[in-house]
Amino acid sequence: MTFDEIYDLVREDMKKVEEGLYRNFQSDVPLIPTITSYLNDAGGKRLRPMFLVLSSKISGYSDGNRHILNSCIVELIHAATLLHDDVVDEAFIRRGNPSANRKWGNEASVLVGDFLFSKSFLLLASEDDSKINKSVSAASKEVAEGEVLGLATKGNFDISEDEYMDIIYKKTASLISVSCRIGAIIGNASQEKEKALADFGLKAGIAFQLVDDILDYTGNPEKFGKTIGLDFQKKKMTLPLINLFQKAPAKEKKKIQELVRSNDNLSCRLKTLVGMMKHYDSINYALDKARNYVTEAKKEIVAFDESPSLTAILSLADYVVSRDI
Amino acid sequence: MTFDEIYDLVREDMKKVEEGLYRNFQSDVPLIPTITSYLNDAGGKRLRPMFLVLSSKISGYSDGNRHILNSCIVELIHAATLLHDDVVDEAFIRRGNPSANRKWGNEASVLVGDFLFSKSFLLLASEDDSKINKSVSAASKEVAEGEVLGLATKGNFDISEDEYMDIIYKKTASLISVSCRIGAIIGNASQEKEKALADFGLKAGIAFQLVDDILDYTGNPEKFGKTIGLDFQKKKMTLPLINLFQKAPAKEKKKIQELVRSNDNLSCRLKTLVGMMKHYDSINYALDKARNYVTEAKKEIVAFDESPSLTAILSLADYVVSRDI
Repeated sequence: MTFDEIYDLVREDMKKVEEGLYRNFQSDVPLIPTITSYLNDAGGKRLRPMFLVLSSKISGYSDGNRHILNSCIVELIHAATLLHDDVVDEAFIRRGNPSANRKWGNEASVLVGDFLFSKSFLLLASEDDSKINKSVSAASKEVAEGEVLGLATKGNFDISEDEYMDIIYKKTASLISVSCRIGAIIGNASQEKEKALADFGLKAGIAFQLVDDILDYTGNPEKFGKTIGLDFQKKKMTLPLINLFQKAPAKEKKKIQELVRSNDNLSCRLKTLVGMMKHYDSINYALDKARNYVTEAKKEIVAFDESPSLTAILSLADYVVSRDI
Repeated sequence: MTFDEIYDLVREDMKKVEEGLYRNFQSDVPLIPTITSYLNDAGGKRLRPMFLVLSSKISGYSDGNRHILNSCIVELIHAATLLHDDVVDEAFIRRGNPSANRKWGNEASVLVGDFLFSKSFLLLASEDDSKINKSVSAASKEVAEGEVLGLATKGNFDISEDEYMDIIYKKTASLISVSCRIGAIIGNASQEKEKALADFGLKAGIAFQLVDDILDYTGNPEKFGKTIGLDFQKKKMTLPLINLFQKAPAKEKKKIQELVRSNDNLSCRLKTLVGMMKHYDSINYALDKARNYVTEAKKEIVAFDESPSLTAILSLADYVVSRDI
């Protein structure tokens, strides 16, 4: 199934998620809806809600709106982290448009991010499910830890592949994993199936971030919706760079460090670095790793009954590595 | 009772709160304990935990550690907002020391703030009390709204006293109110007493922020632990300034706006402005308002039985307006 075909299957649910998000983006405080509606208009694929909704469906959830409410919970946390990320990265482009911090300043992005976090926890309190509450709070803590870890390892060529994997597990995969877990919880899936879906989400989430990090070097800016080379510019140690540095002989290691640390023309430096990554097969190395994670992710949910929703969630896992590559 | 006498009464509890905070400040991610222990070493009066602990005691709570856990919940939210506030205000001094953003950069302050928020909600999930959960999330949302409102009204001389009161109600009083409410909830107080304690906290919280805003103009930097004149420098519209602007004749209104908007020597401008505030009695106006709120706050809890804890919490309300004035 293509992404559009997957989306068609959950179109009605996603429409309700959009309505729910819109409601939660409101506030009597004027600056808040200005920024949140700007964020909302810029769109986003709503991957976490799609994972959650499809997980709930393959777990047998059919009545009620808990899948909508919980989708809003995870997407609000995601939206909050995007606002804070852009402040941390001094990003100027998000989803093809000027980022919120560029338009309204870092202060507004920090505080509106806090508002979205709080709204998410307010919804979580209204949902009032102890298990979901604990899972989401734990994931939210991991996201923050992953972000700090990413910040602390900027420009550090001593970082190992394992440390990098730990960062992306925390900052990205944990929230996708909890989205899938919630689907299982509201669908009253067995403990085994809940764990299977959480592991599926974790592995698909790792693959997603691996690909995101590859696209920062090789992506088409218009399709990717972010500034290309931003990780490189911010000296973020992602797998293509870590792998290149490991493989390169001593003399080239020095050149790589210079390319990353220099203030010369960014696109020239980026082009040279991507050339080296291709030469040392580091892009393919990262891509193979992402593909393996998707393969392993899909194995986790073999025990679920066949259904259009199962086909769709498996295809969604494929999509995270096939997009724009 | 003096502040030290109040503190003595809850010393054992506060020691446990400090231990709880210390545990929650930890993380495997190295930068996190570095920043949180720096924050912790700088201290802080732990007013919110003191309000919570004393509220629980006058509500009859005596066994268990829920007052400690919940004190950590509110104080972690407070610590998170302090970190984010300092980023927003570009503050360089906090509690007499260089602020965390000054030492480790805005990025780290934003992300470690997010970590503390998440830890608070993780504790809240472990506490697993639906009513507390809803109250804290709602307060946290109000804090964020109050902060955004404060940001959006910077330098706006059209702001009314009511709008200012709404900001301080949201950004400061709501969390102090919820601290007192939690004390009532864990002490199994009646609905009436719970509301009375929440209203007590709200009014004491408003008084606290009024005094904080006065001290930004008149405080002793060493005692206050913050940079004096920071609100003024950041063009924050607080009551002394709003009141002065309302009372001043047209010609002086223009001068006030110039003083706030100018980039000339800060301490000279501040001195001139404070002189005008004294002339128009705007400092006393704000101080009287704070004192009235404390008087009204104390009336809210007349129905509670006399006890050393009741005397202490009433004295704590007095303290918020008597400190360093």
